[in-house]
Amino acid sequence: MKAVIVKQPGGADQLIVADYPMPTPKNGEVVIKVKASAINRSDIIAREGKAGYLENPILGIEVAGEVVETTEEAKIKIGTRVMGLVNGGGYAEYVTMPANRIMIVPDHLSFEQAAAIPEVFLTAYQTLFWLGELKDDETVLIHAGASGVGTAAIQLAKKMTKAKIIATAGSTEKVNFCCSLGADICINYKEQAFEEEVLKATNGKGVDVILDFVGASYWEKNLKSMNTDGRWILIGILGGPVVEKVNLMNLLMKRIQLKATLLTPRSDEYKKQLTEEFEQKVVPLFISEQIKPIIDKVLPLEKIKEAHEYMEGNKNIGKIILSVK
Amino acid sequence: MKAVIVKQPGGADQLIVADYPMPTPKNGEVVIKVKASAINRSDIIAREGKAGYLENPILGIEVAGEVVETTEEAKIKIGTRVMGLVNGGGYAEYVTMPANRIMIVPDHLSFEQAAAIPEVFLTAYQTLFWLGELKDDETVLIHAGASGVGTAAIQLAKKMTKAKIIATAGSTEKVNFCCSLGADICINYKEQAFEEEVLKATNGKGVDVILDFVGASYWEKNLKSMNTDGRWILIGILGGPVVEKVNLMNLLMKRIQLKATLLTPRSDEYKKQLTEEFEQKVVPLFISEQIKPIIDKVLPLEKIKEAHEYMEGNKNIGKIILSVK
Repeated sequence: MKAVIVKQPGGADQLIVADYPMPTPKNGEVVIKVKASAINRSDIIAREGKAGYLENPILGIEVAGEVVETTEEAKIKIGTRVMGLVNGGGYAEYVTMPANRIMIVPDHLSFEQAAAIPEVFLTAYQTLFWLGELKDDETVLIHAGASGVGTAAIQLAKKMTKAKIIATAGSTEKVNFCCSLGADICINYKEQAFEEEVLKATNGKGVDVILDFVGASYWEKNLKSMNTDGRWILIGILGGPVVEKVNLMNLLMKRIQLKATLLTPRSDEYKKQLTEEFEQKVVPLFISEQIKPIIDKVLPLEKIKEAHEYMEGNKNIGKIILSVK
Repeated sequence: MKAVIVKQPGGADQLIVADYPMPTPKNGEVVIKVKASAINRSDIIAREGKAGYLENPILGIEVAGEVVETTEEAKIKIGTRVMGLVNGGGYAEYVTMPANRIMIVPDHLSFEQAAAIPEVFLTAYQTLFWLGELKDDETVLIHAGASGVGTAAIQLAKKMTKAKIIATAGSTEKVNFCCSLGADICINYKEQAFEEEVLKATNGKGVDVILDFVGASYWEKNLKSMNTDGRWILIGILGGPVVEKVNLMNLLMKRIQLKATLLTPRSDEYKKQLTEEFEQKVVPLFISEQIKPIIDKVLPLEKIKEAHEYMEGNKNIGKIILSVK
């Protein structure tokens, strides 16, 4: 089968489409004919050789497609339209997936739309609710509001809570898009000091939850933006990893909870539990079209280099999808 | 009445016993004739003028004594032997306390023993279970194991979980005392590198919960001691507040949750809820004498300067109590 592998850890030019053996399902897994896969930042980190938490040499952590082979413990029919997280191997014609984390694709969605759901909506759900514990009378600050996780988080916070939503983004087009999805206050961080806007919007109190993809370069600004008892969810370090000076007294006085998280390296059991709760609480919102996958661009599997470079340029609004024939 | 106030923010010599007006209870509060109060690190910080979260000019955040005056909403009898957290004012002959956070003193305990319970056992309970979410198959690292909170936390972890308990302390006497309370592994941090001992004791995995009173000077060592998905509860900065060069990638790769907390500045409602759960789950362990308050020394109210200096010398094992006539 066709699959994308990395020649050597490095840039997007290290990605090649190669012939690769078909995957073999373990008991409890199914084999999926991949119709669409999607690009994630963790794929880029894996490509660069900076994180070794997946054993599969084929990149790609989410797919949508059709079940073509099943196993005894995996109670699902051949031909079912499914989507979900895979343990690597998503950039390929076929991939295995544990059956207990499969989600059924809502009828009205294409495979390309479905492939835009698992990673970013599960991450948004997990960070807003499991880790962020966002409540109705609170305010959430969503950085990178036009990113995959950002667009998912704005929609989930809007439809599932009455919380006030503040989003940041880096262009007028992105800022407008965040507001169109339901963010109450949208800040262009290139033109405004977001921490000042946050304090204005919260009567000087700050926000209760931050989804932080940025890390070091926003450290002091996020600290200023945080309310007492705030939950600061660190999910990325696009702005660098090293904070020069951290004053723990500031964390103590605000009783801040800084929760660092990644979804991909978590256990199969964790992903199963998260997926099951998501199917109950979020998938119905897709079915009733209250929320929707946000796709920036669809490229064929063969254009994988272009797809990675496009994400690295930070120009996308929503997901970059790979179509797999 | 007699009460301890601070002449000017500063050292222990600023503490004086003065005449002060009797406190007036608001509805829902009672007046307590204080029989014993206790010294806490937050009293020292308040004395130094470094934290202004209590309005009461009289220091002291916990007492044991007898109810001498009640109000309509406070359904408790005159003469009841009580203990609990106060919103300042504990170093005095009389103090007010919201009735919904009063705990009844177990019959076999003296007022001096009872005054050694509220702050440290409530803090230990809150940090181990509400914030630390300690589970039976996990390991907890309790720094300052011979301190007030440390001795409380070792006992609670021992009696309420099957978790492995690792404690650190700074002298042979303190280390032995930690082990006598039930810690499985006791480390003299002046003689051993605690992070190496922790890794040895956990097959290289690290601990799941840290109670950290130390802050900056232990930062890297605590980071090394932490297991994946660990909860790092920051409750003090005895080792300084400023950490140079914090690498957020280390927090991300271990998915660490750093939770900074203080009990004193929290809301009345929070203290009520914590006290109620504590009365149900922990007070019975005092009644059945499975756990006990640990007292280092009892001094009369008039020796307040000596009491503060004694705590600042870090020599105490357990609580320093003020007896109030």
